Amino acid sequence: MSVPSHALTFEAVDGLPEVRAGDDLAALLAEALDRPAAPAPLADGDVLVLAQKIVSKSENRFVSLDTVEPRAEALSLAARCGKDPRLVELVLRESSEIVRVAPNVLIARHRLGFVVANAAIDQSNVPDGDERVLLLPVDPDLSAQRLVDAVHARFGVKIAVLIADSFGRPWRLGVCGVCIGCAGLEALVDLRGQLDRQGRSLQVTQLAIADQLCAAASMVLGEAAEGRPVVRVRGVPQRYLQNPRAARVLVRSSAEDLFR
Amino acid sequence: MSVPSHALTFEAVDGLPEVRAGDDLAALLAEALDRPAAPAPLADGDVLVLAQKIVSKSENRFVSLDTVEPRAEALSLAARCGKDPRLVELVLRESSEIVRVAPNVLIARHRLGFVVANAAIDQSNVPDGDERVLLLPVDPDLSAQRLVDAVHARFGVKIAVLIADSFGRPWRLGVCGVCIGCAGLEALVDLRGQLDRQGRSLQVTQLAIADQLCAAASMVLGEAAEGRPVVRVRGVPQRYLQNPRAARVLVRSSAEDLFR
Repeated sequence: MSVPSHALTFEAVDGLPEVRAGDDLAALLAEALDRPAAPAPLADGDVLVLAQKIVSKSENRFVSLDTVEPRAEALSLAARCGKDPRLVELVLRESSEIVRVAPNVLIARHRLGFVVANAAIDQSNVPDGDERVLLLPVDPDLSAQRLVDAVHARFGVKIAVLIADSFGRPWRLGVCGVCIGCAGLEALVDLRGQLDRQGRSLQVTQLAIADQLCAAASMVLGEAAEGRPVVRVRGVPQRYLQNPRAARVLVRSSAEDLFR
Repeated sequence: MSVPSHALTFEAVDGLPEVRAGDDLAALLAEALDRPAAPAPLADGDVLVLAQKIVSKSENRFVSLDTVEPRAEALSLAARCGKDPRLVELVLRESSEIVRVAPNVLIARHRLGFVVANAAIDQSNVPDGDERVLLLPVDPDLSAQRLVDAVHARFGVKIAVLIADSFGRPWRLGVCGVCIGCAGLEALVDLRGQLDRQGRSLQVTQLAIADQLCAAASMVLGEAAEGRPVVRVRGVPQRYLQNPRAARVLVRSSAEDLFR
């Protein structure tokens, strides 16, 4: 498919099987992209956006709620938000700070820095109907880097990999795709010192490029995320691929959070 | 250009002249899209994303700082944030609430409900080097609807129009494109009651579709926004176009803001 200049294309990568614990994601991707029906082989500059869920699954980040013993604090929080005390215990284990508790609401700062409902623990689309939940990857930036390296080793092309999740936002309703893991792309681009067309300093000094890509990719990943868990993005400007920065740089620390 | 299924394409609409106060945006768009070099005529289901700046300019939302007399509260706030007291006065006029003041920081809830630095008043890329600033459109949802209607009258096609700005976010660094005006598309999609593939209720119940589209569109609009102020999006699923909801539904009121 030809892509015009100044165009971005987000395209589902079809043909991935259901991902299971221990699966080699790079190998599954290779198979999906090698199929005759695949739209085009991977090329330098392509950006693959993966649903967090398949990365977590491949890394076996499942936890059976049966195995979780809630501490006193979890029982107390669970009573306040009306959630399963075992889930709340996992939220405490995954987080550095509880940000907000209310009926049906438990917002935490994940140990990776992300502020998100239930510490981003996923209870949906877990197979078998059992009481397992799915935690975030241990180090999503590293997970992304491993895939970049594996694709390079296998295909000889230099791509970027983003891992996307969907978070709610303060002040705005609805969830939006965000980037929780990034390799090969400049997750946050710093424009400080650059001038606008009238020679004034730009007011906007940092661009959350990885989040902007994951936001639109989430629409192609779809709500259920599993049928189409990988999206290929083409047309990302080369300048965003030259100085990779991991997704962890997108985290605004509590100390510098001017919005709270 | 053929677009595969499950693909979204964001493509700059080239050929727009610099937009000036009083310009008929629909006519300018028509001219740009009628050029022989234009990639393809507008079609039903196309989504046009416009930079806020050109909509504000066409509606003559310029204010000369010379004409602004700061009230006492503006002088006091300006001393705390180190900003021009006339700009701070405009922020007060545009807002319903000041959310945060710190050196070089002034975050307000715009009267439209958006929580944003400087009430989204734009000081960059205003021509002539004068001391004019640019306010948001008075009613961006209505601005979007007028363009939808004008395009329908002129081309006979049913499109959607989004107006995009870039806002900073709590907890995450960098700005990200967001939707401040929407017509012809379901800005916020409610999935409550829908089930995942295992038959469980979806955890994520509302999708900020318009924000997700504006996020990626912002990358094509570019940082300076003026050279390429319009992006055409193709491939938006038909189900998001059937029940239009304006961008104002994306606003989370202070009372229901569970994140604060």
